[in-house]
Amino acid sequence: RRGEMAKMTQLVNNEVFRAYATYAAIVLLKMMLMSLITAYFRITRKAFVNPEDTESFGKGESAKKYLRTDPDVERARRSHLNDLENIVPFVGIGLLYALSGPELSTALLHFRIFTGARILHTFAYLLPLPQPGRGLSWAVGYSVTFSMAYNVLKAVWLL
Amino acid sequence: RRGEMAKMTQLVNNEVFRAYATYAAIVLLKMMLMSLITAYFRITRKAFVNPEDTESFGKGESAKKYLRTDPDVERARRSHLNDLENIVPFVGIGLLYALSGPELSTALLHFRIFTGARILHTFAYLLPLPQPGRGLSWAVGYSVTFSMAYNVLKAVWLL
Amino acid sequence: RRGEMAKMTQLVNNEVFRAYATYAAIVLLKMMLMSLITAYFRITRKAFVNPEDTESFGKGESAKKYLRTDPDVERARRSHLNDLENIVPFVGIGLLYALSGPELSTALLHFRIFTGARILHTFAYLLPLPQPGRGLSWAVGYSVTFSMAYNVLKAVWLL
Repeated sequence: RRGEMAKMTQLVNNEVFRAYATYAAIVLLKMMLMSLITAYFRITRKAFVNPEDTESFGKGESAKKYLRTDPDVERARRSHLNDLENIVPFVGIGLLYALSGPELSTALLHFRIFTGARILHTFAYLLPLPQPGRGLSWAVGYSVTFSMAYNVLKAVWLL
Repeated sequence: RRGEMAKMTQLVNNEVFRAYATYAAIVLLKMMLMSLITAYFRITRKAFVNPEDTESFGKGESAKKYLRTDPDVERARRSHLNDLENIVPFVGIGLLYALSGPELSTALLHFRIFTGARILHTFAYLLPLPQPGRGLSWAVGYSVTFSMAYNVLKAVWLL
Repeated sequence: RRGEMAKMTQLVNNEVFRAYATYAAIVLLKMMLMSLITAYFRITRKAFVNPEDTESFGKGESAKKYLRTDPDVERARRSHLNDLENIVPFVGIGLLYALSGPELSTALLHFRIFTGARILHTFAYLLPLPQPGRGLSWAVGYSVTFSMAYNVLKAVWLL
């Protein structure tokens, strides 16, 4: 049993893997934050989609008027979906990349730029910033994931 | 070659990792089930979104009337998206958590509560149960993932 | 330090894991491609959802008319969401499956069929092909993931 745990700990002692774990946890938490932001807009804008969510506002017609879409809610939802589309590949490809034995400094550069780009992307989407703010922050994160995928395929290619 | 396989098996022999693999597989299967539930509602309610999906109902206007939204279909789709938003962070953060060397009993507690909460959430969404049923089951799963992320960051923090 | 890296490399030297990394990277890149396809349709069809994205077309009413939905854009978005719903479980369950020690030939069969099915699914969705083309390619990928989940649970079951 102790031998097993020692083996496990080796992965966590590896600095590249620790860096990956840190940044993967941060961007996943950032993605989870979008649920709270959407909920905040739903409650403050009183814009719901499920009838059972409006029952505290009364029965019948008085509650039904809160079953509507709101621009801020929809914006937060699009930002959340964009996170899913981009953070999921980062977490999956990043794990393979971290295990493929990159230099720590190169790996940190990838992880930091991606994390910074996605945080910027969220601000650009929610404020919103004028384009190409959102477009550029999206493209930077996308390119980082693409670069990691290229390094993974170079290291492990087995078709 | 045998040496490699032995190394691989050590990960699977680790009890925390086996527990993670069990519950991660279960919640991912639960999420996959949502596709079947959506398909079931699309077929029984005859509510489709792609024109090519309605061709078996005939050509032209007679088929076009099945290109519509249906409350049950939309509810299943929202439940599926909510799974993506919550089960993806659990699977990603849970892997890092399992590798960070937690106590088996603490890890099992996290995995079991999350899995139970997400199964409850699906029932609360589809039946639907009155609020705060769905809200609470969502919050419990969310808190478990947050607790695992906190433990990961405490163990591996490397910025 | 060198000892750690050697341990890490063992995972990458394992042939099943290398095969997993190859195909997981390919399907995640394929999923990322959907962002570019959606952007291509948004730009060529001039169909946007965020007001700040249409500002280069002028101010006021002249730009507002590009805030609209377009069938090709919506089709690409549905295909992207379907990828998220199916490729995410493949990547998560596939990792656990690769670590559960399957035969290389069996593992390659799973990974190759899934990857082929999802590439077919994208063509079936975007062209579109008549049904049951899209339905069958979806079902094949779904079944492969289900088969891997069954093997994972058989190997690691710990409730």
